[in-house]
Amino acid sequence: MNVAIQGVSGSFHHLAAQRWFGEVPFEIIPCENFGEVFLALAEGRADQAIIAIENSLHGSINQVYDLLLKYKFPVVGELPEHIHQQLIGFPDTGLEDIRRVYSHPVAFTQCAEFLDQNLPQAERIEHNDTASSVALIKQQNNPKHAAIAGHATAKEHGLAILKSNIEDDPTNFTRFLVVNLKAKPIGSADKASLVLRTNHQPGALYRALGVFDGLGINLTKLHSRPIRGQVWRYQFFIDAELDAAQLAKVTEQLKAQDCQLTILGHYSRAQTTDDLE
Amino acid sequence: MNVAIQGVSGSFHHLAAQRWFGEVPFEIIPCENFGEVFLALAEGRADQAIIAIENSLHGSINQVYDLLLKYKFPVVGELPEHIHQQLIGFPDTGLEDIRRVYSHPVAFTQCAEFLDQNLPQAERIEHNDTASSVALIKQQNNPKHAAIAGHATAKEHGLAILKSNIEDDPTNFTRFLVVNLKAKPIGSADKASLVLRTNHQPGALYRALGVFDGLGINLTKLHSRPIRGQVWRYQFFIDAELDAAQLAKVTEQLKAQDCQLTILGHYSRAQTTDDLE
Repeated sequence: MNVAIQGVSGSFHHLAAQRWFGEVPFEIIPCENFGEVFLALAEGRADQAIIAIENSLHGSINQVYDLLLKYKFPVVGELPEHIHQQLIGFPDTGLEDIRRVYSHPVAFTQCAEFLDQNLPQAERIEHNDTASSVALIKQQNNPKHAAIAGHATAKEHGLAILKSNIEDDPTNFTRFLVVNLKAKPIGSADKASLVLRTNHQPGALYRALGVFDGLGINLTKLHSRPIRGQVWRYQFFIDAELDAAQLAKVTEQLKAQDCQLTILGHYSRAQTTDDLE
Repeated sequence: MNVAIQGVSGSFHHLAAQRWFGEVPFEIIPCENFGEVFLALAEGRADQAIIAIENSLHGSINQVYDLLLKYKFPVVGELPEHIHQQLIGFPDTGLEDIRRVYSHPVAFTQCAEFLDQNLPQAERIEHNDTASSVALIKQQNNPKHAAIAGHATAKEHGLAILKSNIEDDPTNFTRFLVVNLKAKPIGSADKASLVLRTNHQPGALYRALGVFDGLGINLTKLHSRPIRGQVWRYQFFIDAELDAAQLAKVTEQLKAQDCQLTILGHYSRAQTTDDLE
């Protein structure tokens, strides 16, 4: 089995894949960005993919929402993980000596206050992912460069953790989705990811949400994204807790309201949340 | 009058400020990022600020939403503008020669497909704003470097437009907000920007939207942002078309539903949309 991930070995996506697949052996297909992950699936180089969709400090990762809708590969699982970020560099470097910090942009948002307060002098250089940022500073061998990444990457590259758990808030969680080429129906599926387009009449969104409310379905997420080519018109990405019978009713009732509904996936969630360090 | 903008002279923020203030003379206070713009207001170095809140291709600019809520400076106006992006560089450079492209990250999203298709070999280097990216490549004087910015910046720095209107879709609009320290009530105010927090009970958002629907108020935007410290809980940024009497009723009825409502501003909009090139 080949699993496409954003990033390289040791990245948070890799750790999430290990958690999801557990004992099942797999090869990772490292990808430079989220677009490459979907391309690896589309071209058959990967059977499965693990992709971050949201971080509790950063918010939604819009590019992934757009890619889910573009490719419509089924979402088959969800994995919420507790994320800890480490400032990694050369052992004798003091924080005040650092001139450049490399990491993924989402990691920068998670640590923005820490960086503002402790490394105001350092340039933030966006890189493909956290783990490869550590490989990069090791290769550059400049003690004024540092990276933000997970715990294991420091040991892997023989570097030091200059400051641990630098995320701005201890409630730093990332939700990962598992996507593959062909979903099998899951009897225990209890959550669906949907895309809703209303007919843009006043009150249309309110009436559409009334369908879920009328069926006693809880929404865990409502996220708007612009519709390309239609200025100031939005589509809504909705996560809802529902079983197959409820999903069929939602689909039918929204259709009757002149709404377009796309089902990105109906799946079951990982039961526990682990710490990814 | 001092107007804080993200970016420097010639940036899209500068052009938007010229459009909003028209004949009224003003000085710009150039700021490196959105956080600096709010700081310039907070420290009294600026009386007014112009900030992009949303682009029709990129989506919401989350950092600005978070800053509006943090500082609560009143929103006093709104300005939608049609944006055209230019690839700017040295006159004899062919697209295939370009190794680095500098611009603001939001400009990169607006031109992502163009860059993927025409400049796959070029690194995208994020810079503070579009106009200063042009100044930077001029200073570097390397014909392999290019920038993405508005039309006027090429002439200002004696550079060439290598490819014009490279935005991925002609419907490329940015909404700018005008923020100042002390809002005066505007009799003609017809739009409000609000932040809603429900009590997170199932159906709470649906019932809150029912308040607007019951009063016949149209929502032009509903955008969710995570609440820091409360994992997978959201607050909703809502733009609604309403007058002062309706705003008072909304406030009262939402309070009765155990919702927290923050009014970021009640204002009138610019009547027309200009092209910013």
